[in-house]
Amino acid sequence: MTRIITLTTDFGEGSAYVAQLKGVILGIAPQAAIVDLSHRIPPQDIRAGALFLGDALPSFPEGANHLAVIDPGVGTERAILIAKWRGGYIVGPDNGLFSLLFELAPPESLFHLRLPSGRKVAPTFHGRDLMAPALAHLCMGDAPEAWGDAAVGWVKLALPQPTQISDGWRGEVIAIDPFGNLITNLSASLMLEPRSQFLVRCHERVISGLKRTYGEAMPGEMLALVDSQNRIEVAVACGNAATELDAQIGDEVLLLRRN
Amino acid sequence: MTRIITLTTDFGEGSAYVAQLKGVILGIAPQAAIVDLSHRIPPQDIRAGALFLGDALPSFPEGANHLAVIDPGVGTERAILIAKWRGGYIVGPDNGLFSLLFELAPPESLFHLRLPSGRKVAPTFHGRDLMAPALAHLCMGDAPEAWGDAAVGWVKLALPQPTQISDGWRGEVIAIDPFGNLITNLSASLMLEPRSQFLVRCHERVISGLKRTYGEAMPGEMLALVDSQNRIEVAVACGNAATELDAQIGDEVLLLRRN
Amino acid sequence: MTRIITLTTDFGEGSAYVAQLKGVILGIAPQAAIVDLSHRIPPQDIRAGALFLGDALPSFPEGANHLAVIDPGVGTERAILIAKWRGGYIVGPDNGLFSLLFELAPPESLFHLRLPSGRKVAPTFHGRDLMAPALAHLCMGDAPEAWGDAAVGWVKLALPQPTQISDGWRGEVIAIDPFGNLITNLSASLMLEPRSQFLVRCHERVISGLKRTYGEAMPGEMLALVDSQNRIEVAVACGNAATELDAQIGDEVLLLRRN
Repeated sequence: MTRIITLTTDFGEGSAYVAQLKGVILGIAPQAAIVDLSHRIPPQDIRAGALFLGDALPSFPEGANHLAVIDPGVGTERAILIAKWRGGYIVGPDNGLFSLLFELAPPESLFHLRLPSGRKVAPTFHGRDLMAPALAHLCMGDAPEAWGDAAVGWVKLALPQPTQISDGWRGEVIAIDPFGNLITNLSASLMLEPRSQFLVRCHERVISGLKRTYGEAMPGEMLALVDSQNRIEVAVACGNAATELDAQIGDEVLLLRRN
Repeated sequence: MTRIITLTTDFGEGSAYVAQLKGVILGIAPQAAIVDLSHRIPPQDIRAGALFLGDALPSFPEGANHLAVIDPGVGTERAILIAKWRGGYIVGPDNGLFSLLFELAPPESLFHLRLPSGRKVAPTFHGRDLMAPALAHLCMGDAPEAWGDAAVGWVKLALPQPTQISDGWRGEVIAIDPFGNLITNLSASLMLEPRSQFLVRCHERVISGLKRTYGEAMPGEMLALVDSQNRIEVAVACGNAATELDAQIGDEVLLLRRN
Repeated sequence: MTRIITLTTDFGEGSAYVAQLKGVILGIAPQAAIVDLSHRIPPQDIRAGALFLGDALPSFPEGANHLAVIDPGVGTERAILIAKWRGGYIVGPDNGLFSLLFELAPPESLFHLRLPSGRKVAPTFHGRDLMAPALAHLCMGDAPEAWGDAAVGWVKLALPQPTQISDGWRGEVIAIDPFGNLITNLSASLMLEPRSQFLVRCHERVISGLKRTYGEAMPGEMLALVDSQNRIEVAVACGNAATELDAQIGDEVLLLRRN
């Protein structure tokens, strides 16, 4: 276990809620190295949070600890997960938020946080009053059994899966990055033949062949490529594909073999 | 005193002004653990800054240090405060920014920063040239007397107070959080009877009874509750109350006893 | 060299790309103190990045290390720079991003990163797969020769320069800060006579004399002053000059001697 504690929330950049999380953690674990990952997960968007965690957390070293709070069900019956994962701890609501991450690398063990008796807990802010204290104490050496009861399984998220069609695959946009690139659920591993054999269709635009990187297209040209997470992405070189296509999450993207 | 130095400004996320503050601090106190709280206080909005600091700083442990720069009067006659507060130091302009915080927990001692002679100070950026150096040197062990002259009192901010009406209280929206929840100046402690005895009125909408948390309402339902700072809040479950009501800071909110 | 590593990117606040940079760095240099400078450089805007770095990095102490990724040419033939600079290391694409900084303080030595053989590198994300690992290893004590080949020179950016006109100088807006202040390329050192001898013209507005700071103007009044980087700036006291003038980067600003 390391002194690293990452934070991922939908609280909004610079909100007092984030500040309170940090204060609580540092009060318990003063040597913690708090690392902001994102506070801009769209409010209550568990799927966006799950995608973010699946992309971000595997880059961190063994022993790093992670707090993630996208928690529309705060104060209700949903459980709070404590996971031992890659030598560190993860704490957050058991609402599907960790399901993509755990598909990539399952937890070593799982617990449900016990609600403390006697301590004051705001029913609208378990991140501050339950999750942050638990994770900080675990980082200081507490055993997970001191904070939770052994659990099996976690809430799974049903992500849209690509479907096979006669000449390829039908997928969809699952995220739009800050450059306006359209991230799809089409994995590069769907292409069993050379990439030059494929074309991508999105919003009636046909993009022939996959480029290796943005700079291989002319400025302003629309292109498709395999992104740094091995997913097919639609981009505009030096531009913004989401704006140009007026694209939304959920829009159809086809990966087709050339005739 | 700890190595923790928090930053709160209206400089904007990712502005070079914030970067310069950090560079100056680390030049003087290389072991400082800089913690970003917010750089999104609305420009020159002392009241929003004061509310933020009152919500955020009490979560931090004894001995943490805090720099706060919302400073529309930079370079004029307004004083710069150095406060010894809960075992650490606070530095920032004496323009009301700390008045809500100091109502909650008064400073142990107060000083006015002396303007240095000979050192180059940009009249538009005292945060970088005066406040950050002072706080960093205090963190390194300087006595406050080396940087300021003993002072008594600080500028107070006149916050709108709820007024008693025949059947309850008239308050107002004092902040809107990133979820679109309307934070009011109505403290939960105004309710001397059980919460079920009350209703909340806001923008012609009557909300019966206070819920304990968001998830007790149906998705899309408007609700009132006591927030994690013990203030009455108007929210929409899985939605955005500010957008739905087109609400603004200053809008009237009534807390009324049921008949 | 210190444990400080600053990050400047155009990846967007809270994007998973930033999180991945942090994870990679902490995996190699677990004691690094990562300092976010900005992730809001406008996408692919090398000039904005160069201005930012020129303003921000000189505030940092000797020995601090800096990673900057605004890299529209990722995966193409553009080189990646490793610079020894003020006792620390800078790593980033050689596309002009460092040219303003290096005008202020030239690097002590320069290298071009060698592309590793055998290691997996995503052609769309050299920041994560090449630059961050190189900088983190340099911070851990690797010699730059282990990562790059000695280089001379770097890509220079052609910034707009003010031109002399009969009664003064014609400059332009080069940046707009989060307060809406218009930052120009007119250096205060162009004024060889007392500041009261000058007036500033911008969008048909004539501003007489330069103020020392914002608070010397009435709220709502437009003013000109010398900013904290010694550049002439147009502002509105307690307001937003960019909004009021509908000003853009590139707009003409004149510095004129009074008749």
